[in-house]
Amino acid sequence: MPLRPTHLKLMNSSTHLIDDTHDSAATSWVDGTQGHPDFPLQNLPLGRFYLSDGRTRTGIAIGHQALDLHAVVGMDLLNGDARYAAEHALEAPIALSAAERLALRRGVFELLRVGGRGADRARARHTEILHLQDQITMQLPARIGSFTDFNAGIHHTRNGRQMRGDGGSLPRNYHHVPIAYHARASSVKISGTPVRRPLGQTLPQGQETPVFGPVQRLDIELELGVWVAQGNALGTPIPIENAADHIAGYCLLNDWSSRDVMAWEMDRLGPFLGKNFATTISAWVISPEALAPFRDPAYVRAPQDQPLPYLLSPQDQKHGALALQLAAEMRSARQRTAGVPLQRVVSTSAEYLYWTPAQMLCHHASNGCNMEPGDLLGTGTISGPAHHMYGSFRELSRVGTEPFDMGDEQRCWAEDGDEIALSAWGQRQGFVRIGFGECRAQILPAIDLPTHEG
Amino acid sequence: MPLRPTHLKLMNSSTHLIDDTHDSAATSWVDGTQGHPDFPLQNLPLGRFYLSDGRTRTGIAIGHQALDLHAVVGMDLLNGDARYAAEHALEAPIALSAAERLALRRGVFELLRVGGRGADRARARHTEILHLQDQITMQLPARIGSFTDFNAGIHHTRNGRQMRGDGGSLPRNYHHVPIAYHARASSVKISGTPVRRPLGQTLPQGQETPVFGPVQRLDIELELGVWVAQGNALGTPIPIENAADHIAGYCLLNDWSSRDVMAWEMDRLGPFLGKNFATTISAWVISPEALAPFRDPAYVRAPQDQPLPYLLSPQDQKHGALALQLAAEMRSARQRTAGVPLQRVVSTSAEYLYWTPAQMLCHHASNGCNMEPGDLLGTGTISGPAHHMYGSFRELSRVGTEPFDMGDEQRCWAEDGDEIALSAWGQRQGFVRIGFGECRAQILPAIDLPTHEG
Repeated sequence: MPLRPTHLKLMNSSTHLIDDTHDSAATSWVDGTQGHPDFPLQNLPLGRFYLSDGRTRTGIAIGHQALDLHAVVGMDLLNGDARYAAEHALEAPIALSAAERLALRRGVFELLRVGGRGADRARARHTEILHLQDQITMQLPARIGSFTDFNAGIHHTRNGRQMRGDGGSLPRNYHHVPIAYHARASSVKISGTPVRRPLGQTLPQGQETPVFGPVQRLDIELELGVWVAQGNALGTPIPIENAADHIAGYCLLNDWSSRDVMAWEMDRLGPFLGKNFATTISAWVISPEALAPFRDPAYVRAPQDQPLPYLLSPQDQKHGALALQLAAEMRSARQRTAGVPLQRVVSTSAEYLYWTPAQMLCHHASNGCNMEPGDLLGTGTISGPAHHMYGSFRELSRVGTEPFDMGDEQRCWAEDGDEIALSAWGQRQGFVRIGFGECRAQILPAIDLPTHEG
Repeated sequence: MPLRPTHLKLMNSSTHLIDDTHDSAATSWVDGTQGHPDFPLQNLPLGRFYLSDGRTRTGIAIGHQALDLHAVVGMDLLNGDARYAAEHALEAPIALSAAERLALRRGVFELLRVGGRGADRARARHTEILHLQDQITMQLPARIGSFTDFNAGIHHTRNGRQMRGDGGSLPRNYHHVPIAYHARASSVKISGTPVRRPLGQTLPQGQETPVFGPVQRLDIELELGVWVAQGNALGTPIPIENAADHIAGYCLLNDWSSRDVMAWEMDRLGPFLGKNFATTISAWVISPEALAPFRDPAYVRAPQDQPLPYLLSPQDQKHGALALQLAAEMRSARQRTAGVPLQRVVSTSAEYLYWTPAQMLCHHASNGCNMEPGDLLGTGTISGPAHHMYGSFRELSRVGTEPFDMGDEQRCWAEDGDEIALSAWGQRQGFVRIGFGECRAQILPAIDLPTHEG
């Protein structure tokens, strides 16, 4: 996906600017939008989906419907910069510049607002420009170029070491380096895709020889995903001052993990088969502009410990953190059949991330590594300081030693048939709640072991 | 790149079958092919390149020229399966099946052979179907989906631990797990692309606080690359019996490394910025069919220590290893200006790889991770047991303490202006030498440090 020049200019980043599109009094003429927990008029996330006839569309979520941008452009419902941006979004929604995203957001906000500019024309053609979300099939918003997973959840990192017996201290580089590893792009799938329990090589406790079979310690990791918009040329870092403008938006990310495989395979080179069998993400790209009311000073829960200058900008220190609530819910196959609702097992906050998304992106490109539109960054597991804030089963069950409650059942690790859903939302006095939509998957049993002639 | 069904069937793998296309008496009518160290008639590697007018072509290296498959197809010089395979190669040379590669190889072998089928017609139009390699610009043979780097060089692994003070033993999982980590696809570039010395965060010896600036310990890693042809569906492993058929071919791979960055950034999650600024590969894909005479029993230099059954097949144990010679040569900018030729600094062999390429691929997909056409696997640094066989500067200079000779200069680490070239070839009594072509890059100085307002 080559970079495109754009004629739209924007004075620095739009990511912390609160404008009319955040007005909590504005309402949409689209049915069921008022009070929608995820997709009110003030959200307007981009996504891609299939129509029932298999055609691909770029669209925007509004309530329980999706606005079809192909139809909107075809009917000439947008003007000027908004129209221009919508045309670009048809090709590659993830690669829009911040200025283009803002123009499109403002245009669509008017189109869908009661009394907005162009709203009467749009409403007259609502059957042609809106699809019910349950009648479309979401797809990834971009071909993921590379997927990188960070380790910015400071409590998760501390818990991990404590539970491994490393004393609960942080790695000595933790306050200096936004630590990350390259992960697998091909197995990142959209919410709703089932996760097959993987086979893997593990060393049973007390044994000398490893075995190969279905993994036993299947875990979740509750993370946010960060979509990269425009990239950088190889050899040319992205300064921290510009990094926020390279972020297209955010999603939920469940970084499925086989703890027993990781324990055996990891030496110095990091996780591999323990992670790369599946990653589940939510389908809609929640824009930095939509999240503007939910920003906080960098690492609001504890001040950053003097990062090096290449990771410091006044704006990022002031607005860089995401003040988002996060949760994980789950239920067993039996509970599902019995009509039991999903049971909340984790409640945490993105404010427990030590590094801001802009710092992660800036660090990633600081050696000249070339980022590309559609690259995906994971934040790392977001745990808080209390037990109910732990973002993985490993932490919740203290490495399988203390089962946690899931309604009338208990769990240490994910079992076949379990359905697991992550959620995220911003909520603040004076603003409408913005949600991320669904990030859900059900565990399928492992395939039969292949037989070998040896 | 979706999988395509193919009407060509082949009884199991063609990768160890020696046929007429390996006949050392066969010669080509193309000028300068006889005695060419890399690209005799018996090699015929696929690649992609730009013509001087910017058009992209798929082609096959022959001597110092490249056969233009678009022209060959356009002039109808191939028939039957070979023509069909050539048409597929125009779209996606890396995704050909083993049967398609073999059909194309046999057809082109005849076309270019003195007295071969169709050779007269081809020769009559030689100016239209051949381009001098120095008048075309090579490009990557495929869009790299994902890049995974293994750690199959057993001597490198042992040296690494010894030089870190871990006693020179292997990790306890080494004989069981083909260890690997996900690497960065976007910064893999073709031979000839300069490598800019990266900036990075490092902890100077004896200090408490890290610094950010040009890296000091820039290193090479001499590896082979393995191109994935057709992949597997997510959740469906590739059995070891079939793994060789998923390999499109091989290239040279220089896994550039900043040792000072790695020493500071790596905790448990593996290498990140210490590696992802650049990887250099050779442009032509050397096919398994071309390398058939240069296969050996798996880990010929010491028997494998009872891998688990999922990594064992009789055929792979018999023919899985690559019997290839490898070298690294280099010279300084001063030597280059003075007309000094490249100085050999490493001589080693692919037979020092502990795992076969088929075992690496099988292990990668053993948890259901979906491989895709154009995925690239690195073998890991290939060092041998003696000092001149060490495949990285870190080993050659014993972590910077014992400079090694480069003609009339000495080195511990790569310096600005250094030109470094890797080479690989198969050579065996009764067969023509097959080479990999060029894998070369020159080090450019770091960019100026960005200034910060802080």
